[in-house]
Amino acid sequence: MKKSLAEIAALLNGTVTDAACIEITGVTNIDDAGPGDITFAVPPHLDKAGKCAAAAVIIPDSVEAFPKPAIRVANPRIAFTTLLSLYTPKPDIPAGVHPAATVSATARLGVNVAVMAYAVVDDQAVIGDNTILYPHTYIGRNTTVGSDTLIYPQVTVRENCQVGSRVIIQSGAVIGSDGFGFVTISGRHEKVPQVGNVIIADDVEIGANACIDRATTGSTIVGRGTKIDNLVHLAHNVVVGENCYFVAQTGIAGSAKIGNNVTFAGQTGCAGHVAIGDNCVFAAKAAPINDVPANSFLAGFPARPHKQWLRSEAAIGRLPDMVRKIRELEKRLAQLESK
Amino acid sequence: MKKSLAEIAALLNGTVTDAACIEITGVTNIDDAGPGDITFAVPPHLDKAGKCAAAAVIIPDSVEAFPKPAIRVANPRIAFTTLLSLYTPKPDIPAGVHPAATVSATARLGVNVAVMAYAVVDDQAVIGDNTILYPHTYIGRNTTVGSDTLIYPQVTVRENCQVGSRVIIQSGAVIGSDGFGFVTISGRHEKVPQVGNVIIADDVEIGANACIDRATTGSTIVGRGTKIDNLVHLAHNVVVGENCYFVAQTGIAGSAKIGNNVTFAGQTGCAGHVAIGDNCVFAAKAAPINDVPANSFLAGFPARPHKQWLRSEAAIGRLPDMVRKIRELEKRLAQLESK
Amino acid sequence: MKKSLAEIAALLNGTVTDAACIEITGVTNIDDAGPGDITFAVPPHLDKAGKCAAAAVIIPDSVEAFPKPAIRVANPRIAFTTLLSLYTPKPDIPAGVHPAATVSATARLGVNVAVMAYAVVDDQAVIGDNTILYPHTYIGRNTTVGSDTLIYPQVTVRENCQVGSRVIIQSGAVIGSDGFGFVTISGRHEKVPQVGNVIIADDVEIGANACIDRATTGSTIVGRGTKIDNLVHLAHNVVVGENCYFVAQTGIAGSAKIGNNVTFAGQTGCAGHVAIGDNCVFAAKAAPINDVPANSFLAGFPARPHKQWLRSEAAIGRLPDMVRKIRELEKRLAQLESK
Repeated sequence: MKKSLAEIAALLNGTVTDAACIEITGVTNIDDAGPGDITFAVPPHLDKAGKCAAAAVIIPDSVEAFPKPAIRVANPRIAFTTLLSLYTPKPDIPAGVHPAATVSATARLGVNVAVMAYAVVDDQAVIGDNTILYPHTYIGRNTTVGSDTLIYPQVTVRENCQVGSRVIIQSGAVIGSDGFGFVTISGRHEKVPQVGNVIIADDVEIGANACIDRATTGSTIVGRGTKIDNLVHLAHNVVVGENCYFVAQTGIAGSAKIGNNVTFAGQTGCAGHVAIGDNCVFAAKAAPINDVPANSFLAGFPARPHKQWLRSEAAIGRLPDMVRKIRELEKRLAQLESK
Repeated sequence: MKKSLAEIAALLNGTVTDAACIEITGVTNIDDAGPGDITFAVPPHLDKAGKCAAAAVIIPDSVEAFPKPAIRVANPRIAFTTLLSLYTPKPDIPAGVHPAATVSATARLGVNVAVMAYAVVDDQAVIGDNTILYPHTYIGRNTTVGSDTLIYPQVTVRENCQVGSRVIIQSGAVIGSDGFGFVTISGRHEKVPQVGNVIIADDVEIGANACIDRATTGSTIVGRGTKIDNLVHLAHNVVVGENCYFVAQTGIAGSAKIGNNVTFAGQTGCAGHVAIGDNCVFAAKAAPINDVPANSFLAGFPARPHKQWLRSEAAIGRLPDMVRKIRELEKRLAQLESK
Repeated sequence: MKKSLAEIAALLNGTVTDAACIEITGVTNIDDAGPGDITFAVPPHLDKAGKCAAAAVIIPDSVEAFPKPAIRVANPRIAFTTLLSLYTPKPDIPAGVHPAATVSATARLGVNVAVMAYAVVDDQAVIGDNTILYPHTYIGRNTTVGSDTLIYPQVTVRENCQVGSRVIIQSGAVIGSDGFGFVTISGRHEKVPQVGNVIIADDVEIGANACIDRATTGSTIVGRGTKIDNLVHLAHNVVVGENCYFVAQTGIAGSAKIGNNVTFAGQTGCAGHVAIGDNCVFAAKAAPINDVPANSFLAGFPARPHKQWLRSEAAIGRLPDMVRKIRELEKRLAQLESK
């Protein structure tokens, strides 16, 4: 791929500052960029970008002077994403079922589906058009996968589940494992059959080695456009809305109901059977143990308003000092009292 | 499956309140239940169940009036579990070795074993009667798996391990990976060979993508009936008693000894080389760093008695207020002193 | 394997205290050792070792009297590791490509490589001499694996990555999964193509079900000799130095730069885009949210100096008492003021 700066600017609805005819052969970050590459920068990285080895830089409209050839755009991050897609050839994956794959005679494949070596598509499963199953994928009985979905190696999607279109599932993720449900009878934990399923809506991404358990009865649901990072755990009967983020190693306990546009930062948790309103944000390692109203920004465990958490954390730092002061106050007070 | 309410009541040792002849065709939760379904309810969900669309509800003996056909039983949760098992047909999995599976000539399979596509049973491994190995299972050399055990796709059980009977291993779990043991010689970490194994007793369940490391020497042991949730980590030489719960994302460090009936809630940890007594409970995100006597209920990190943790957490919320009060006390005291 | 105590002492550069001609047939820990076994002990385990069933014990040079046959060495732990290697026969894994493995015609294999059943080596991949790929391994297009590397079952190494020599990857680990990168356009999270790769240097070990994401652009890098435990997450563009330890369930956010000889204990985290100096140690469950200078020992979240954390934690335990004292001080002060 080779394009002039002017051509790129036109693609991005941006304006070239200089050197419109130089040719751009690569797109990368500031540190790795060399001659021929374009990169992008937003504050506070503009200075660094101005001195880097890149041929050109995508910068915000608002930047006036810049020491290098540049393209000004409204949102450099979005422009950079567009260029990355343009400059990265999609891997050429031939459609068809590999001779060493196993597709049940009762499964149905759409057109242009790729089923790679050692993938298994079990009885009555349905795979939509243009979907790609990498090696060692397991698609269980009666499970449906939509169109244009991409499933990387070693993924399990168990029986009776539904996966939407344009979904991406990273390696090692498990969809539809049994929920963790037991009843204790005479001191022994007996398994509660987990006969529900998992429904993954369109445009969801699921990270490597993430686990989404099937419902006891009914469905565990992940709403459209929600993005789930590596090693996240969603327990049975969790219901997640649209456009949420679950950052790495987050765990959501059973039957929690999560609204739309909610962000759980890394290593957060969430108690079971609680309701989390739309647009909530949980800082790293936080975990709510009760219902949370919409638009809350919480931190800590148990989760409390972020500002309150900051004040408490600051005060904890002063605790040894407080202990000393109280002791001193007691002494001075005793002296006064003894007068 | 179709049974009258009277027939179901007889199965559950319960009593029908009304409409004994209606036919029940499904078993599910309150929210998903429709006509023809039976569900169950315990306080505080009785009101909701009374208004739901289910044909009938399983309720506790102690409930007197109920606005719907119902079956009264001693324990609705257990009764519901019984019905779920009855109404859910077990998947019909044919016994036999799939032509695209690899079973070593020196491995031994019991009767009625299913080895699905691309499963590998390595040299000298032994698989008990009625055990099911889903696709992509790997059973290592000289490893023994008991009878009636169910191993889902993408599970690894490494060499020389022992897995009991009626064990369930969810997808992606790893049994017998090397423990994390190194000695540092001249600044380089040299691997300590991990030559022990893992022993999983009968009736254990292991969650998706959980990891149980083999012992350095000797055995990592999980006792009968213990249930391990997704993404749990048990390090080398951990010894776990019977009927414990390890909820999702819990991590137990090397050589910890855990008693019977212990519960580690979600995202808990446990220091290495400590002993945890029987019947202990650790609240979410807690982690003990010392030995813990039997019957303790601990929270926080480092773990402390739950009541004490609650008092401290409440006090932390009042910290900014305390800072203010101390400052005020100092001022008033200074005024008195200056008189 | 059978050696006399004298022969073993010679191998370990140690000195026998007694019974130089007894024969040692096994090497194990104090608890599991029986007649014929040798074990090792350092304080505070010397008493226990003196009473155990082992035939002999490896002890530190500094121990004078010991009630059993023993070998005195400078470092018993290192000596024990040497013996474990000696007494544990390496599994006999025949070189060659299993007939049920899939190696692309454009891949290149070194000499003496083992590719086991159902492993996939994709186009243009390169595998070095003596490397072992267990069943169900997936090596992506154009990925390079060095020599003498050991990859256990169900591992994914995605396209364009580099894995060094003498690397060990435990089962279920995922190398090169997409980083968690999105831009939000009109309320929808659009994927940022993750076109970088992962570079794993020589002598690294990666734990079961650990995840190392590929860089957005450029490389996610793990330096020589670093050891990564189970269920660890390294996000896109993380750069890790040499000889670090990442204990189980640790998560490092995107673009963090970690120096050499850094230890992250279990369940720790690290904010994105921060720089961690050489030789830092983070106690269990800690997480730095800013840059950390070399040689720091931090604990808690947000991470603070370990001593300070200890003092704060002690003070938190005294908080309910402080609340009481402040109330009392107020009362006494009010009495004085009213005089």
